[in-house]
Amino acid sequence: MVKTAKKKNKKASHFHSTLSSSAEKKQGKAKITIIDYNETQFQEREVPKAEDCFCFKDTSSVTWINIDGIHDVDTIEKIGKHFDLHPLVMEDILTIEQRPKMEDLESHILIIFKMFYYDERIEEIKIEQVSLIFFSNCVISFQETQGDVFDPIRERIRSAKGRIRKMGADYLAYALIDAIVDNYFIIMEKIGEKIEGMEEELVTEPTPKTLQTIHNLKRDAIFLRKSVWPLREVISGLQRTDSILIKKSTAIYLRDLYDHTIQVIDTVETVRDMVSGMLDIYLSSISNKMNEVMKVLTIIATIFIPLTFIAGVYGMNFKNMPELDWRWGYPLVWVLIISVALLMLSYFKRRKWL
Amino acid sequence: MVKTAKKKNKKASHFHSTLSSSAEKKQGKAKITIIDYNETQFQEREVPKAEDCFCFKDTSSVTWINIDGIHDVDTIEKIGKHFDLHPLVMEDILTIEQRPKMEDLESHILIIFKMFYYDERIEEIKIEQVSLIFFSNCVISFQETQGDVFDPIRERIRSAKGRIRKMGADYLAYALIDAIVDNYFIIMEKIGEKIEGMEEELVTEPTPKTLQTIHNLKRDAIFLRKSVWPLREVISGLQRTDSILIKKSTAIYLRDLYDHTIQVIDTVETVRDMVSGMLDIYLSSISNKMNEVMKVLTIIATIFIPLTFIAGVYGMNFKNMPELDWRWGYPLVWVLIISVALLMLSYFKRRKWL
Amino acid sequence: MVKTAKKKNKKASHFHSTLSSSAEKKQGKAKITIIDYNETQFQEREVPKAEDCFCFKDTSSVTWINIDGIHDVDTIEKIGKHFDLHPLVMEDILTIEQRPKMEDLESHILIIFKMFYYDERIEEIKIEQVSLIFFSNCVISFQETQGDVFDPIRERIRSAKGRIRKMGADYLAYALIDAIVDNYFIIMEKIGEKIEGMEEELVTEPTPKTLQTIHNLKRDAIFLRKSVWPLREVISGLQRTDSILIKKSTAIYLRDLYDHTIQVIDTVETVRDMVSGMLDIYLSSISNKMNEVMKVLTIIATIFIPLTFIAGVYGMNFKNMPELDWRWGYPLVWVLIISVALLMLSYFKRRKWL
Amino acid sequence: MVKTAKKKNKKASHFHSTLSSSAEKKQGKAKITIIDYNETQFQEREVPKAEDCFCFKDTSSVTWINIDGIHDVDTIEKIGKHFDLHPLVMEDILTIEQRPKMEDLESHILIIFKMFYYDERIEEIKIEQVSLIFFSNCVISFQETQGDVFDPIRERIRSAKGRIRKMGADYLAYALIDAIVDNYFIIMEKIGEKIEGMEEELVTEPTPKTLQTIHNLKRDAIFLRKSVWPLREVISGLQRTDSILIKKSTAIYLRDLYDHTIQVIDTVETVRDMVSGMLDIYLSSISNKMNEVMKVLTIIATIFIPLTFIAGVYGMNFKNMPELDWRWGYPLVWVLIISVALLMLSYFKRRKWL
Amino acid sequence: MVKTAKKKNKKASHFHSTLSSSAEKKQGKAKITIIDYNETQFQEREVPKAEDCFCFKDTSSVTWINIDGIHDVDTIEKIGKHFDLHPLVMEDILTIEQRPKMEDLESHILIIFKMFYYDERIEEIKIEQVSLIFFSNCVISFQETQGDVFDPIRERIRSAKGRIRKMGADYLAYALIDAIVDNYFIIMEKIGEKIEGMEEELVTEPTPKTLQTIHNLKRDAIFLRKSVWPLREVISGLQRTDSILIKKSTAIYLRDLYDHTIQVIDTVETVRDMVSGMLDIYLSSISNKMNEVMKVLTIIATIFIPLTFIAGVYGMNFKNMPELDWRWGYPLVWVLIISVALLMLSYFKRRKWL
Repeated sequence: MVKTAKKKNKKASHFHSTLSSSAEKKQGKAKITIIDYNETQFQEREVPKAEDCFCFKDTSSVTWINIDGIHDVDTIEKIGKHFDLHPLVMEDILTIEQRPKMEDLESHILIIFKMFYYDERIEEIKIEQVSLIFFSNCVISFQETQGDVFDPIRERIRSAKGRIRKMGADYLAYALIDAIVDNYFIIMEKIGEKIEGMEEELVTEPTPKTLQTIHNLKRDAIFLRKSVWPLREVISGLQRTDSILIKKSTAIYLRDLYDHTIQVIDTVETVRDMVSGMLDIYLSSISNKMNEVMKVLTIIATIFIPLTFIAGVYGMNFKNMPELDWRWGYPLVWVLIISVALLMLSYFKRRKWL
Repeated sequence: MVKTAKKKNKKASHFHSTLSSSAEKKQGKAKITIIDYNETQFQEREVPKAEDCFCFKDTSSVTWINIDGIHDVDTIEKIGKHFDLHPLVMEDILTIEQRPKMEDLESHILIIFKMFYYDERIEEIKIEQVSLIFFSNCVISFQETQGDVFDPIRERIRSAKGRIRKMGADYLAYALIDAIVDNYFIIMEKIGEKIEGMEEELVTEPTPKTLQTIHNLKRDAIFLRKSVWPLREVISGLQRTDSILIKKSTAIYLRDLYDHTIQVIDTVETVRDMVSGMLDIYLSSISNKMNEVMKVLTIIATIFIPLTFIAGVYGMNFKNMPELDWRWGYPLVWVLIISVALLMLSYFKRRKWL
Repeated sequence: MVKTAKKKNKKASHFHSTLSSSAEKKQGKAKITIIDYNETQFQEREVPKAEDCFCFKDTSSVTWINIDGIHDVDTIEKIGKHFDLHPLVMEDILTIEQRPKMEDLESHILIIFKMFYYDERIEEIKIEQVSLIFFSNCVISFQETQGDVFDPIRERIRSAKGRIRKMGADYLAYALIDAIVDNYFIIMEKIGEKIEGMEEELVTEPTPKTLQTIHNLKRDAIFLRKSVWPLREVISGLQRTDSILIKKSTAIYLRDLYDHTIQVIDTVETVRDMVSGMLDIYLSSISNKMNEVMKVLTIIATIFIPLTFIAGVYGMNFKNMPELDWRWGYPLVWVLIISVALLMLSYFKRRKWL
Repeated sequence: MVKTAKKKNKKASHFHSTLSSSAEKKQGKAKITIIDYNETQFQEREVPKAEDCFCFKDTSSVTWINIDGIHDVDTIEKIGKHFDLHPLVMEDILTIEQRPKMEDLESHILIIFKMFYYDERIEEIKIEQVSLIFFSNCVISFQETQGDVFDPIRERIRSAKGRIRKMGADYLAYALIDAIVDNYFIIMEKIGEKIEGMEEELVTEPTPKTLQTIHNLKRDAIFLRKSVWPLREVISGLQRTDSILIKKSTAIYLRDLYDHTIQVIDTVETVRDMVSGMLDIYLSSISNKMNEVMKVLTIIATIFIPLTFIAGVYGMNFKNMPELDWRWGYPLVWVLIISVALLMLSYFKRRKWL
Repeated sequence: MVKTAKKKNKKASHFHSTLSSSAEKKQGKAKITIIDYNETQFQEREVPKAEDCFCFKDTSSVTWINIDGIHDVDTIEKIGKHFDLHPLVMEDILTIEQRPKMEDLESHILIIFKMFYYDERIEEIKIEQVSLIFFSNCVISFQETQGDVFDPIRERIRSAKGRIRKMGADYLAYALIDAIVDNYFIIMEKIGEKIEGMEEELVTEPTPKTLQTIHNLKRDAIFLRKSVWPLREVISGLQRTDSILIKKSTAIYLRDLYDHTIQVIDTVETVRDMVSGMLDIYLSSISNKMNEVMKVLTIIATIFIPLTFIAGVYGMNFKNMPELDWRWGYPLVWVLIISVALLMLSYFKRRKWL
């Protein structure tokens, strides 16, 4: 089964080379962190072996087991076996190109979604798959790499700030998803900044590099959209499910989460509209530029080509060219030349080319 | 929580820099205005402190508390605490990038929507978030800045004109929303004027500035659309809710309001269609212009280049060029030149380039 | 309330300046015509005052009160008061930018829709709002101006042709709507003629005027669409309503009417598709034209520029240019010139430019 | 009523001038053919008068009355009266611009749809309206002209091949519709051939004629689509109806027919997609061509214009031009000229224009 | 019936000439392979005659009969007759241009879908129709040609790996469909590779060949889409059916399969979006290139044309041209020429053309 998962990873991975998945080169063991808390108590530790987290399965306190590194298949499989996960669920967790989804499996709920983060170094949006499984008092989260998006939640648990320590595993799961959805807004802002940064240059100075940037934005928007739309189904699935794992008091938070998701979708659509509008504007701008270039060429050429012809005529070597012998021949030619030039210029003025 | 709200403001704010939110630079205390009325009595006053409006909570008359300046978080929070608003509701009110929404919270209904107004000074559409909370006999409205869109309603209350003094808080809420939806039509008219003003120039004299204007209109249409579509859900949510806060007699007004909303949506879609049509026309116009330019260049060049060649030939210095010694050589060359030119001209005439 | 209506008229009116509303300049009193009939009797008359039609309210015969001129607010209001219409209904009738709609108000049904007619004089499509209110045995129709679209129905009533005299007010209402929907087909035909008239010229001789016409057609299609789509809801609302005002025998006519409406929508969509196709073709045609122009320029320039260079070389005044003294120098240059020209021509032939 | 029908024909007819309706010039009497059969017996005959087919109305055998020529209104009306058809049904049959539809009228079912056939002579797709009315043991089909699309069915009845002689009128109706839907595939194939025939030429040699063909294909696709989409509703209406006219054993055939209809729709959509893709490709191809032309012009002009300038310089007649008297002046100029030319060529090579 | 099938093949086949169906040239007998297994036993053999597989119909073990070569109509018909398939089902299997579909026929379920495979030799995507019929303990699969996509499943059965030997015919059917859906991902990857390979060249070096490739990708995307969308209905049909043939334990696998299908659809849509984006980028790139070409031409021409004119003036042969006799005439002309050239260059620099 693990093989299947790997095979599938390879298959679809090509489509993400742009929003490039950072998991490909990972090696080494997964990092397992455990946070166990209730309203009064709290412990946090990193364990070296999968087996070390098994004892937390049946405690009455809320346990959050975070696993960084789904490339470490052995560890994941051990956990899967202990927590009695269906082979298909395991496959879903290990396959990094999953479509975001939510599945209610009675004793536990599986949620898979995409996390985006902006890599400042290479100025690119990176994508990562996060899977959540939550039982009545335990949440297991699987990440491709170690990230810092969940840090604020860890901090809130540690400091017992807000409601989180008073609520159950379902609220913890909500908080984790909310952290990731919040993260989407940051990505949106980055894209928004890029779009704004280009608006000016788009109309005034379109270059092939602008085109490249628009193309990249478009591709990003396509992938964001692909990840964000299914999220709506996921959250509304959580809302509609009659699983006993989700307490009634969490419903209002899920509704709020749903609203945020809709807003993310709205924004992605807006980005799409704006980017596709930018391409049209780009094309029009290029045409405008070309028009400018053509006008300059036309003005210069249409003024000087006839003049050159006139000069050419009096450069002919015919024996019998009376004009050449006239006293005022040369000045008259200048008069002619200047008249033609002025005529042309006034024509261009009338056509508003000047 | 206030921090969260602020954080979120920052996040998404970039997308509104065009329809630029006017709230960003606000400071100072919020302005609280209270209007309390029933069919026979009426009082209106501005209070300096949040606490001053608490006494109106349980009067039997209808109370409208209007708060201008949601940047004054302290005041808003005090009111929220007193009126027993859920923390998530508070967050919604304080976050200015909310998607329009309606939430029935049993003891009160929350409505959030966008208000547009046209800033004559800078010729730009500005966007502002307005939140309404209404209880059985009290409406609280939150605005980013002090606006005059609610003035006609204030006037109607003062002068006891129409039905407003005879109806309850739900009618007041309806009247406030209606005032804002009515305002949308004014924005649409502004955009309509701009579109019309460009139609002529679009086909006859497309310039890069035209392109800029189309681009701005497109962006405005995208944002208007984003704000207007959810409004439909809001109003239809109000219609479908079985909250006791909405009296049966208000239903017909809500239906009318819904019709207006649909009409606004229709108009936004029409604007979108027209603007996207304008871009196509623009591109075609530019192509037409370029064609004109090219024709002029081609006509001049194709007439004079061959003539210049002829003149060039007889400018050669070969010893043995019999034509140069002919008596009628020079006049014959002129005949040749004129024939070639006429030939060309007739060719252009046949191709309808002249 | 009348003020509100007027205000709203002003607001949205800008969007109709193209399909220009004919009502704007109207003045003077509304014209009221009454037709009262049953299977055996018939009377028709024009009355000067609103009050004159009140007596027909409760007759057992079917009464059709037609009012031309909704700008005469006083008359309309008097009628509204007498027939006990809700203020919002009055507002709907007086506001000429209403979206087509149908409202079942128990004692009467309100139907609002758009009528299009082609003004032969200025070759433009004009739009007019028509409102129908029908009671159990009375139909009141409100028009902006006096039109002749209802004349065939008047004629059918007068001559007792067909079923109309045997049926009730609901059939009369159906007949009026049907007359207007039938009228849509005539408008479609006009547009169809215009489109056809342009098809030929589109590919062979695209001019800026063609572009203008396409732009106008597009705008017309957008507005037609906006008026026609809601009509479907109106008719299907009439079909689904369980109002006792609509007799069972009328159902089959409504179904037929619904089919016609769908057909109108289909045709509007087809027009849209065709017009948007025409713009693409136009752009391609312009590109084709430009290509032609470019080819001519390129052929002439690339043939003569090198030749002019050759002539230029032998126009140089170097002392020591042996070719100039050759006996066959001049003829050889001509051989060279002709060879180069032929070479070029064969190159163009090979590239299929000639 | 007949008049109404005629009027409507005229109205909408303009939209079909391309997929031109073949019925317009028809005259003379309609041709009535009767096929009456059951499992054991069979008779086929052509009758001159409408009255001659009345006797078949109540036989227990299955009767197929085929009427070619709906322009012969008298005949159609006689039949309509005898078979007790509603006036609106009569109008539908006589109006050739009907939208495909199915109506269950209890004692009989009306089905109207479009038949397409390819006129080899003028290489155009022609459209024709076919109406079917079927009673419990009788099918009446109305065609605009005499066609051969039903011949295979006649043959199957004559030769008692397949199940047709064993089944009732509903199966006969199915077989007739199936014959027409099958015919759609032939039309699709014709269009498919045309598209394929153009694919090659599209990229390599786009001409204005290509554009014309694409435009025609687009128009054909629009009209095909308009006729084919409603067909789905018609067939699914037949499937869902609980009319006793349709036996249970026919259900599987209707399901198959529905699948075919969906396939036709899929193919029409594919055609649409491909044609609209072709236009984009065409535009790109034209741009490519223009680019080629421009490159040739630019290469020639930028090489020779500077050279001509050099030659021009030494064609000047200044007294004091030392170069002219140099011994190696002339050869040096040639060296200069050739160097400049080579420089230019290498520049073009570097830019990959050569 | 067989004739009908053949006829239909011919009809629609034209649309697949690109994703060319490999079945057309097939001849010879179909190859029948039988795999019969239960948890403990297993046999596999190839049989020469259709009759040889009849004995497996009623065994209690699971039997998979695979038939390669649906062109061998006789064999297929024999099997069809023995397994009691409805004539329309037979027609569906034999007609290679079927739309993917699922039909529950009580005693058996028919599933038809498309298989894609990439032909490395000719670098083209090939399409093949696969039909599955499954009874309670028997699956019959029909392929156009012998393929290797089912080999992994054969291997899993042989080696009793995974669950397959423990499950029934419905699981086998699921496994077969899953194998094909998995195969879609490989095709997607191929297309993904092609798209990526072009991204670079698209912006920097667009050639007509690029256009050809985009056109092909677009066509492939259209056909993939046409095949993949109906698959969703097929799988969801399988999920929703209440047929006893599908055991409850298979439901989770079908849900997983459904998720994969959705993912395939998502990817196809992404491909479509990206390809259509590429065309826009292509067009913009071409315009950019043209702009570059135009600039070069304009710069060279506008610099040298005026200079040539100057040289031309002093090449005139007027008797009375005082400049020609000046001592510094010639050097001054050079000064003039160089000044004009520098002026032009600085103008271009200011316009950022250089």
